[in-house]
Amino acid sequence: MRGAVIHAPRDVRFETLDDPGIVHPTDAVIRTAVTCVCGSDLWPYRGAEPIGDPHPMGHEYVGFVEEVGSEVTSLRPGQFVVGSFATCDNTCANCRNGFTSNCLRREFMSTCQAEYVRIPNAQGTLVATDGVPDERYWPGLLAVSDVMGTGWWAADAAEVRSGSTAVVVGDGAVGLCGVIAAKAFGAERIIAMSRHETRAQLAREFGATDIVAERGEEGVARIKELTGGIGADSVLECVGTSEAMRQALHSARPGGNVGFVGVPHDVAIDGQELFFSHVGLRGGPAPVRRYLPDLIEQVLSDRIDPGKVFDLSLPLDQVAEGYRAMDERRAIKALLKP
Amino acid sequence: MRGAVIHAPRDVRFETLDDPGIVHPTDAVIRTAVTCVCGSDLWPYRGAEPIGDPHPMGHEYVGFVEEVGSEVTSLRPGQFVVGSFATCDNTCANCRNGFTSNCLRREFMSTCQAEYVRIPNAQGTLVATDGVPDERYWPGLLAVSDVMGTGWWAADAAEVRSGSTAVVVGDGAVGLCGVIAAKAFGAERIIAMSRHETRAQLAREFGATDIVAERGEEGVARIKELTGGIGADSVLECVGTSEAMRQALHSARPGGNVGFVGVPHDVAIDGQELFFSHVGLRGGPAPVRRYLPDLIEQVLSDRIDPGKVFDLSLPLDQVAEGYRAMDERRAIKALLKP
Repeated sequence: MRGAVIHAPRDVRFETLDDPGIVHPTDAVIRTAVTCVCGSDLWPYRGAEPIGDPHPMGHEYVGFVEEVGSEVTSLRPGQFVVGSFATCDNTCANCRNGFTSNCLRREFMSTCQAEYVRIPNAQGTLVATDGVPDERYWPGLLAVSDVMGTGWWAADAAEVRSGSTAVVVGDGAVGLCGVIAAKAFGAERIIAMSRHETRAQLAREFGATDIVAERGEEGVARIKELTGGIGADSVLECVGTSEAMRQALHSARPGGNVGFVGVPHDVAIDGQELFFSHVGLRGGPAPVRRYLPDLIEQVLSDRIDPGKVFDLSLPLDQVAEGYRAMDERRAIKALLKP
Repeated sequence: MRGAVIHAPRDVRFETLDDPGIVHPTDAVIRTAVTCVCGSDLWPYRGAEPIGDPHPMGHEYVGFVEEVGSEVTSLRPGQFVVGSFATCDNTCANCRNGFTSNCLRREFMSTCQAEYVRIPNAQGTLVATDGVPDERYWPGLLAVSDVMGTGWWAADAAEVRSGSTAVVVGDGAVGLCGVIAAKAFGAERIIAMSRHETRAQLAREFGATDIVAERGEEGVARIKELTGGIGADSVLECVGTSEAMRQALHSARPGGNVGFVGVPHDVAIDGQELFFSHVGLRGGPAPVRRYLPDLIEQVLSDRIDPGKVFDLSLPLDQVAEGYRAMDERRAIKALLKP
């Protein structure tokens, strides 16, 4: 089969690879329906994370079950399945507590920009749809497997409530899905921070009531102006940089909540500052599996349409162009079709 | 009048001071019934915080209203009142959100180890009891004004739930009150970290089911042993050092909660570590005013007895001995009687 391999910063190639097979009896192999490039893939692509030896890339996928291991009893070949970037058995203590992305048997996916993918912990991880969904829903379901699940978790961790005010820091695909989630959670006012016209427009379409283009302390001042001088009830931090975390913490009101879902890079939080802010902070890799049944249903019933974050669609063999377009911010998110 | 003044590390003197009076129409002056020395007073006492010019000390008090300003309509001279170390108007946006210790008009108390005290924002801050309580309740009510309110907040911020497991880091008065709170919140298992026999004994009396003497990674390993290998649902961090915060964060299960109420000294939290832990973190100065009516009632109805944290009682003029005894860990907490 063929798939994407990163060799060095800005060097992603589409190559022939070994076909994946069942390694453990809890595995499944799927034939990829659609996959995509993630904002987090840009960290190694830009040289901001070490690459090491050339290796496959990608952790987002929906597809058709091709083969299952002997212990996978709930899935059968031909089913259309949605998964998550973090596999889980969905039975361990952490899974039972709802933190499926901290499963004791977790394995992070990393080979999904390919024609076929081996899925560890398949029975716990994959959720089959009722029949094969119409192809127009595939982008939305693909979004659910990562960015929409992550935006949902951001709103959940930031404790967005009906009637509250939410700020979304970051206008990438996760931030935009965070806007969808904040609206679904009932936020009355949703302030998206963006200085990019296309993204701000999509944020509005998803439910943002205000756009703030300012950043740093100017951005904080603008948020305070919009929130009675005290800051927002909930802030969704969807970037992962030190600046974004500072922006988020300073935008929350005393006693408000920050949900942080961008993988932090060189972020240190000052204990005394956090203390006197009274802000609650929770983050982590999204427990997508917990949300999958609900989010799949929301997509298939047209209640949410996170597939709109894909503003570029390419054949899988043009994966390198997908990376380039996202790196240059020409595309929010690139969908890849095998 | 007379009161305590700190001049330098380990130099607290009992001196004649100006009588306090009404400065703002929202003030009251109280005659102190009992006051005490706080663990946080030991930071400057030990030279771990700058002292600057000699200044009065103390932020815990219960007393009798002596005089009220013209805008204080709900209080009258002679009433017995319980307050908080952070004054509040109890009407601003932050107060309405429950974060009274982040009131927009907040002033921190700092002159309470004295015979008379001026209380800013008196109407919002002070809660009068129904008549003058029997003197045996004064220590408990004094505890409510700070350490018990703070222990309660630690359990609240750590989201202790019925049937859950709570760890308390710190065996000072706040930590011991945290044990009381965890029990009141319904925790089934309460693990107190202590290597001090008297304190561990009081922790057991307050409801601790287990005592862990180990610290650092050994302490974490012991907590994991006691919690099915994954860590505790809730951890109350009642110290404020970097070691205590690390202990707390590592003792919580994935998706668990840490409530941190020790004022942080040189505490930096690594964003990536917090991220992958899924632990929720909230701290700050306790919003004591929010809890006062309930906690006063609990003390006066003998449901909780936080006054037991005072294992040393001294005349106010021996305040210096109170500091010494706590510094040398001969006393958990020193009560001072004018």
